[in-house]
Amino acid sequence: MSRQLYKRLRLDEYKLRDAITGIRDLHNLADPVGVVQIHREIDAGLIMKRITCPLGVLGVIFEARPEAAIQIAPLAIKSGNGVILKSGKEAKHSCEVIVKVIKQGLSNTIVSPDIVQLVKTREETLKLLKMDRFLDLIIPRGSKSFVRFVQENTNIPVLGHADGICHLYIDKAADMEKSVAITVDAKAQYPAACNAIETLLIHSSIAYGFLPPIAAALQSLNIELRGDKTTRDILPNIAVATDYDWETEYSDLILAIKIVDSLEDAITHINHYGSKHTDTIITEDSKAAEIFLAMVDSAGVYHNCSTRFADGFRYGFGAEVGISTQKTLPRGPVGLEGLVTYKYTMVGNAHIALNYTGDNAKSFTHRDL
Amino acid sequence: MSRQLYKRLRLDEYKLRDAITGIRDLHNLADPVGVVQIHREIDAGLIMKRITCPLGVLGVIFEARPEAAIQIAPLAIKSGNGVILKSGKEAKHSCEVIVKVIKQGLSNTIVSPDIVQLVKTREETLKLLKMDRFLDLIIPRGSKSFVRFVQENTNIPVLGHADGICHLYIDKAADMEKSVAITVDAKAQYPAACNAIETLLIHSSIAYGFLPPIAAALQSLNIELRGDKTTRDILPNIAVATDYDWETEYSDLILAIKIVDSLEDAITHINHYGSKHTDTIITEDSKAAEIFLAMVDSAGVYHNCSTRFADGFRYGFGAEVGISTQKTLPRGPVGLEGLVTYKYTMVGNAHIALNYTGDNAKSFTHRDL
Repeated sequence: MSRQLYKRLRLDEYKLRDAITGIRDLHNLADPVGVVQIHREIDAGLIMKRITCPLGVLGVIFEARPEAAIQIAPLAIKSGNGVILKSGKEAKHSCEVIVKVIKQGLSNTIVSPDIVQLVKTREETLKLLKMDRFLDLIIPRGSKSFVRFVQENTNIPVLGHADGICHLYIDKAADMEKSVAITVDAKAQYPAACNAIETLLIHSSIAYGFLPPIAAALQSLNIELRGDKTTRDILPNIAVATDYDWETEYSDLILAIKIVDSLEDAITHINHYGSKHTDTIITEDSKAAEIFLAMVDSAGVYHNCSTRFADGFRYGFGAEVGISTQKTLPRGPVGLEGLVTYKYTMVGNAHIALNYTGDNAKSFTHRDL
Repeated sequence: MSRQLYKRLRLDEYKLRDAITGIRDLHNLADPVGVVQIHREIDAGLIMKRITCPLGVLGVIFEARPEAAIQIAPLAIKSGNGVILKSGKEAKHSCEVIVKVIKQGLSNTIVSPDIVQLVKTREETLKLLKMDRFLDLIIPRGSKSFVRFVQENTNIPVLGHADGICHLYIDKAADMEKSVAITVDAKAQYPAACNAIETLLIHSSIAYGFLPPIAAALQSLNIELRGDKTTRDILPNIAVATDYDWETEYSDLILAIKIVDSLEDAITHINHYGSKHTDTIITEDSKAAEIFLAMVDSAGVYHNCSTRFADGFRYGFGAEVGISTQKTLPRGPVGLEGLVTYKYTMVGNAHIALNYTGDNAKSFTHRDL
């Protein structure tokens, strides 16, 4: 069993406490269903509302990470959806116990325990992907290849959690102490997470001063460094980074380093090689930060803080169903809000469209109520 | 040239006036870009914002309907996106003139005329569908088979405008006069529109009284009627409706009629055969209306008004880019709001995730600002 898999399977006290805290936070969040988003008079006596409602049935296929079942089932229940869970096979036994406990809890409520289901085999998963008449959203969590597989084998909308190739860019106007602390946190605090960084970009004008202390801090935590040619002029003992490195999510104790000559080069690198997940700039130059936040085309764009904050719990959404790196909505960490849709209701009194067309067309009032 | 195609191609004074009114309404709408949707303190000095931003480049492939170009280009410009337009070949010459005029207008502004492009051939369209590195959203407007073709031949997100199989259900507690007026409007005012009804459902307890005047009104407008067995007991001279009719968008002067025994049967029929577009109940029974609005799983659910109001302009969104019948967002008529996405920005001062995990974890404040 690999180091990463072991870390993912282990439901230690911290992960459990975080998951329970997430549910308690969720309990305190407003009901996402029945929210009137638009309430508008179209004309006298013709009233439109846009009201949130559940999506229907969710299929959530996640990796061998038992706390995911604890996070996802309550989100589905709170948002009024049914949910079919499928965990990575290594977490099957943990998830069976977790789903049993959730069903026991539901049996004392008006919500049927049947709305939470666990499927256990790959064959069942493949059948689920074909059930587009019955499922309304598939949320695959796992490797890029797995997400791609799901996308290519279903007509059900997919909330894609593609890979997380996150970057940290240390600008020429960066503070050294912040740079070391944030780099260490973003890479080493939990390297298996999708919001950990894979590539460090650093401005050429400060690289000579900044790279040695950063490298020392990372190497003391057993992080393997790989660098481009200029980086290796400063850190001659590290391995070579190639194009492969710029486009790889290691999910491991490895960091690629590249020296860039400008903010623009950093932004271009991120928009080309990144996965539109989360990227950070470290700088004391507020104009540079503003340009970075506007021009980096990612779900999360940060200034002077760790990429590791990209998470539904940390954003205050309660536990999350996943992080979306698509450009269409929902984007970024998805909690309750991403699990509801809306419908438009219109109530009139014999209103017909004919009266609003032609020579004597009535006008719409379009007055928000 | 078919009757429907001729109606679509013709840019008469009413269509032109509606399109121009749509642009003027759009001008009055708020800028959809840069809206701060969430502004939250995560912890002291760590501030998150969710801010709307353009999607990027839109590809809009529409049918032979020249007013669509007038509607879509300004929506793309106002939402900060580039747009590549492709019209049905029969509307090519009208669209060339429209795009030329739009580019002339842009040349006097800070927006480059290059952000609006028109492609003219099917071969160019096929190339566009493969350019997922450069396009962020494809909006196909047209037949079900065309939308399916686009969905199956691109990895770019598709804002699907599938077909519109809209229903009108006349409840046992319906008012006769409203029923006749709304049925005629919903079917006959513009049968080629996706929000025109294709099927009339009518409660068995009032069918004998209501069907003859409704049929007379429709037949006087040259609407062909098709009915199930019970309907033909009342209207013996109409054609037989089969399963084919329940699942067909005629876009023509044809209406299928079915008699149902209950509100529940009507809802079941709509959720089974409908396309989740727009469906109306006619009733004076507010409880029946409430159940219909809650249980019909469509983007638009109406009470005592015509389905023909399902339209971005009529909803007050300015002109629309299309109507989405998917359950995920955006659903229903899509205007400006559906053409932007958002990003999360986070600004800190050396904030790292490590301090919020483990034994002495700091708490998040999650305070909306």
